Amino acid sequence: MRINDNYLKLKAGYLFPEIARRVSAFAHANPDAQIIKLGIGDVTEPLPEVCREAMHAAIDDMGDPSRFHGYGPEQGYAWLREKIAQLDYQTRGCKIDADEIFVSDGSKCDTGNILDILGKGNTIAVLDPVYPVYVDTNVMAGNTGAASDDGKYDGLVYLPVTADNDFTPELPKQKVDIIYLCYPNNPTGAVASKAALKQWVDYARDNEAIILFDAAYEAFITDPDIPHSIYEIEGARDVAIEFRSFSKNAGFTGTRCAFTVVPKSLTGKASDGSDVEVHKLWNRRQSTKFNGVSYIVQRGAEAVYTDVGRQQVGELVSFYLENARLIREALSAQGMNVYGGVNAPYVWIKAPNGMTSWDLFDKLLNEAHVVGTPGSGFGAAGEGYFRISAFNSRANVEAALDRITSNLAV
Amino acid sequence: MRINDNYLKLKAGYLFPEIARRVSAFAHANPDAQIIKLGIGDVTEPLPEVCREAMHAAIDDMGDPSRFHGYGPEQGYAWLREKIAQLDYQTRGCKIDADEIFVSDGSKCDTGNILDILGKGNTIAVLDPVYPVYVDTNVMAGNTGAASDDGKYDGLVYLPVTADNDFTPELPKQKVDIIYLCYPNNPTGAVASKAALKQWVDYARDNEAIILFDAAYEAFITDPDIPHSIYEIEGARDVAIEFRSFSKNAGFTGTRCAFTVVPKSLTGKASDGSDVEVHKLWNRRQSTKFNGVSYIVQRGAEAVYTDVGRQQVGELVSFYLENARLIREALSAQGMNVYGGVNAPYVWIKAPNGMTSWDLFDKLLNEAHVVGTPGSGFGAAGEGYFRISAFNSRANVEAALDRITSNLAV
Repeated sequence: MRINDNYLKLKAGYLFPEIARRVSAFAHANPDAQIIKLGIGDVTEPLPEVCREAMHAAIDDMGDPSRFHGYGPEQGYAWLREKIAQLDYQTRGCKIDADEIFVSDGSKCDTGNILDILGKGNTIAVLDPVYPVYVDTNVMAGNTGAASDDGKYDGLVYLPVTADNDFTPELPKQKVDIIYLCYPNNPTGAVASKAALKQWVDYARDNEAIILFDAAYEAFITDPDIPHSIYEIEGARDVAIEFRSFSKNAGFTGTRCAFTVVPKSLTGKASDGSDVEVHKLWNRRQSTKFNGVSYIVQRGAEAVYTDVGRQQVGELVSFYLENARLIREALSAQGMNVYGGVNAPYVWIKAPNGMTSWDLFDKLLNEAHVVGTPGSGFGAAGEGYFRISAFNSRANVEAALDRITSNLAV
Repeated sequence: MRINDNYLKLKAGYLFPEIARRVSAFAHANPDAQIIKLGIGDVTEPLPEVCREAMHAAIDDMGDPSRFHGYGPEQGYAWLREKIAQLDYQTRGCKIDADEIFVSDGSKCDTGNILDILGKGNTIAVLDPVYPVYVDTNVMAGNTGAASDDGKYDGLVYLPVTADNDFTPELPKQKVDIIYLCYPNNPTGAVASKAALKQWVDYARDNEAIILFDAAYEAFITDPDIPHSIYEIEGARDVAIEFRSFSKNAGFTGTRCAFTVVPKSLTGKASDGSDVEVHKLWNRRQSTKFNGVSYIVQRGAEAVYTDVGRQQVGELVSFYLENARLIREALSAQGMNVYGGVNAPYVWIKAPNGMTSWDLFDKLLNEAHVVGTPGSGFGAAGEGYFRISAFNSRANVEAALDRITSNLAV
């Protein structure tokens, strides 16, 4: 039996397992250290009460034959899809219908699985630094060549985003077919204006390209001029798929629910040059390879769209944004160059004194017992940068900042 | 943007959506008909109380910062993996460790996704009739050619199982690299003896092939001589992946939890001829493209392994097996040839009087308002057969049988 050789091209491992390995080694050597993790973007605060109540009720449904739920629609229950379409899209003027929403168990899954329905031979562009899943899943799918020493894979088009270009990528110089965008951005915390997104939509329309738009952090946008969805841009329905999640707004990282929007007007090309509806392909993929999200969890997600749900989610988001503000201010006061953390839960800092990203990682771990994420783990252009996540309790954030500002010799 | 053309090779649609279409059309034309569904294998009875209690407690955990769970291990929590390894495997003499268990949201997902890590150019064998997901996912992955008129895809090796060979496939005449087996079988309800499975394990070892063993229905085995796991066969650790689910034993079709066993001793070949551990590839796949199963649901699954959980699951399984017995007896008394339904929740019948599978489907729907599954939907060799599922309430099963035996003109 032959294995998929493309996996052998993958570099030493997904970023976060490598961080876990170093933290584990440090903890083993320093058993008394109280390590504070501001690394992966994992929420810490309780699930909104309204979600817990809805899930309790759903479990009770499962105990009553007349209210028991077996297999649900692979695409998600209509009562959830309709609320998403109405409250996340239609109220913002986006023409998205309920049957264009596919409920799933995670945006990480969907951003990876979407490659199932895309063909070979596409030219693919990603920002650099970038959420590693976009790159690694393309490597696995055979859409790249081998990696060079700086971690770049042959065949991918990297669009650098650094302080030099204000974390705003230039349009690709060559024609690309697939573009991954993530706004508010992971890892840099940058946001995209309407004008910036319109440039991308226009580019995609002009080049018969498709935009894979990851909006997992849209709830953190407080500036009314920043679009929450790519579909707020005229014409995006024909060129974009959007990924959304309940992980970061409602704290569902351990509860698992997300959704992907595939408009019916989006088409791709078959090898004979004919147009094929991407919605039909994704529907077939999900019907065949997925069995829908737990009924219990979907009821929890539905509760997010009630008035009290929106209020409770709003409070959670505000809590983490306040953490981000504290991080920004403390590190700025320390003399660091600080980016992001406004309209986004990630603060992106420049490692001082020419340190590499992993230098700063090891320094923070060793001297302050604080875990962050090395920017170079997100791509070659992230070298010298470092991500601090605002997802933690207030006490932990304050303690971490206190240690950094008082203990760290920079 | 180029789409994956392989999707265009897929025949008119996954079997169950076509059934749903016909049932919907009938219901629309006959709004007063009380349709009873014995079609898809979807459970109807309440979730075991012990699972509901565990999930209620897990939701309460999510409301307390000190017990809140964010991202869990992509492979599943150790407390669940350890119980699976011990109680499903080690107590049966199978040498399977906890870190060889990958908890997932469904066996349908896993049997499809497993192709991500397998290479191109493998020769793939399936039984005929067969669970359609095995075939369709190979079509999507580009492992087949086009379909012929009888629904067979070029490039797949079909091993017919009919009454003529007692639903026991012959070993393939040519060398194959991947073999899908499902026991207790969906759709025929046949089981495999230890001797039969040993033949397959020996074949795989002799031919450097891999067995994808779907044991989703193992809980229905009551005969103590029938193996529950492929790993009860000596040497299977080196050649087999096993898929298991909580859907059919504990009634989790709408709750979503399953697991896949990938032994560390299982290897495949890279293109340079070297051996590669399949476990590492699947671990990398799951870490990159999956975020684990809901903490709440995993706590529900864990409860299955308590003493009271095992008792409650046992009662559920016995309930459906009694349905199967009633179906077998009623249809046998009607003069039909009836197979399966012992050690399995599916009864497989021969359509009488030379009817095709869809003839019998339409007849049962029109004359008895009962929905089953046409055997031809599972493959060319299923033509003339029909699957009746034992998953329904006792009242519905009895009503369906009463209508079939009294109304059906056969």
